Amino acid sequence: MPGVAELLSEAAALAERALDARLPAADEPPARLHQAMRYAVFAGGKRLRPALVLASCRACGGDAAAAEPALAAVELLHTYTLVHDDLPAMDDDDLRRGRPTCHRAFDEATAILAGDALQAAAFAAAAELGAEAVQILARAAGSRGVVGGQQEDLEAEGQPGDLARLERIHRGKTAALLAASCELGALAAGAGPGRRAALAAFGEALGLAFQYADDVLDATASAAQLGKTPGKDAAAGKLTAVAVLGLDGARTAARDWCARALAALERCDGCAEPLRALARFVVERDR
Amino acid sequence: MPGVAELLSEAAALAERALDARLPAADEPPARLHQAMRYAVFAGGKRLRPALVLASCRACGGDAAAAEPALAAVELLHTYTLVHDDLPAMDDDDLRRGRPTCHRAFDEATAILAGDALQAAAFAAAAELGAEAVQILARAAGSRGVVGGQQEDLEAEGQPGDLARLERIHRGKTAALLAASCELGALAAGAGPGRRAALAAFGEALGLAFQYADDVLDATASAAQLGKTPGKDAAAGKLTAVAVLGLDGARTAARDWCARALAALERCDGCAEPLRALARFVVERDR
Repeated sequence: MPGVAELLSEAAALAERALDARLPAADEPPARLHQAMRYAVFAGGKRLRPALVLASCRACGGDAAAAEPALAAVELLHTYTLVHDDLPAMDDDDLRRGRPTCHRAFDEATAILAGDALQAAAFAAAAELGAEAVQILARAAGSRGVVGGQQEDLEAEGQPGDLARLERIHRGKTAALLAASCELGALAAGAGPGRRAALAAFGEALGLAFQYADDVLDATASAAQLGKTPGKDAAAGKLTAVAVLGLDGARTAARDWCARALAALERCDGCAEPLRALARFVVERDR
Repeated sequence: MPGVAELLSEAAALAERALDARLPAADEPPARLHQAMRYAVFAGGKRLRPALVLASCRACGGDAAAAEPALAAVELLHTYTLVHDDLPAMDDDDLRRGRPTCHRAFDEATAILAGDALQAAAFAAAAELGAEAVQILARAAGSRGVVGGQQEDLEAEGQPGDLARLERIHRGKTAALLAASCELGALAAGAGPGRRAALAAFGEALGLAFQYADDVLDATASAAQLGKTPGKDAAAGKLTAVAVLGLDGARTAARDWCARALAALERCDGCAEPLRALARFVVERDR
């Protein structure tokens, strides 16, 4: 996948700067809150969403500077959801990317508040791009997007699962924000409705491919590969693609959604590499 | 205080409609999440913030229809902060306005997610007014506003308190969003920077007056008057104005901030009643 590593590392460097500029200093009062926000944000994630914003923006003729507010917005939003998902009342995780989760490193109240403040910061960043960007982010973030997906995920624990429910969860938890990332990148470049819709469809399909691939990795990869305990979702009674479709079925679904993502790009003039490469990376990665 | 009761009841009716129109139906999946959001929002609050938006908008020549998105935005934001503040890891409250708190009526995970989704809905509503409205709301909501105030409030528990810390907490927890309510009302009416700044200063002073009056009420009113257990903040080791200044000192501070709020109105041509009446109401109410 030529160019993916370069794109991810470029997006990561851009994200570090963009996020740092939009967060209060760690010693500004209330310092514990600002430290917790920065701890969660600067945790060495893949920065996949910033890479999608950057590549989508470039595909529509924009540059890195144009992509910056949107790229900060989606990563701040994503980070807040991780902090809240890890809470004891939710997935109750002690580790994320090999480090203590935010509520473990600080305390539960601080983690809830750090997540809340990161969400507000995400919308402040989106507003730099205009009100339409805020609407796109709010739709992806709200009860019909990320938050709704997490609620359905929690409610599905220990329940008999079907494919419709699984895809509703994946669409909410993952695909909604990946679609918004691509659409915001296009918006930042000044793209028209047609290209914006095509890139949103690409991001949505990519999000589903990503989640199927994630479920396969969770069932097959080693702890060293993943940086976390594999099989944890299945052990927690979570609804997973492997449980519903079997390992081969989940692999096929990942490839199928990757193909749909690539097909969506056909509707977007000039949207070629590196978006294509990102789509293949998402299903072929080993961690 | 002529007109205050009418203004509050008009704002409440307007808020019911504006909020209902901006929340998914209670039976839309995930239904439990949408029920929790509506449970928290339609709980019979005073709707003071919507009244401030409406009165500020009218003072600047706007009408109720213009005020509606901003009024929904501040009340959605305020409601989410109440849901999260009540959580076991925070203030651990079982009752609010005489009913079980959201995490008691539903469960903790649902309450966290309902709060998160309400925050996203608040920004979606603000975006109807434009990107500047989103920036105003984000500033009031974030780590330098409401969330920062709650963090400082939690950190101050059981600590020796001084006036500077107390006012920092009050400014964050209450005054920031009251200032934003007034400023957003002015923005919705198309007011220029001068009037917007004057109304923001009014709202900020009013917020401090409100908090001082609240601390006095908590120390002196009966449970029947308040609809909650009085003295709870002091018993929980919270930093209160009565502990720092004594009862008379807290009363004086409330009146002093009310006078400053009224003085800020002098800088705003035509901003007379009912904003003046609201300022007096805030320090003279008995619940």
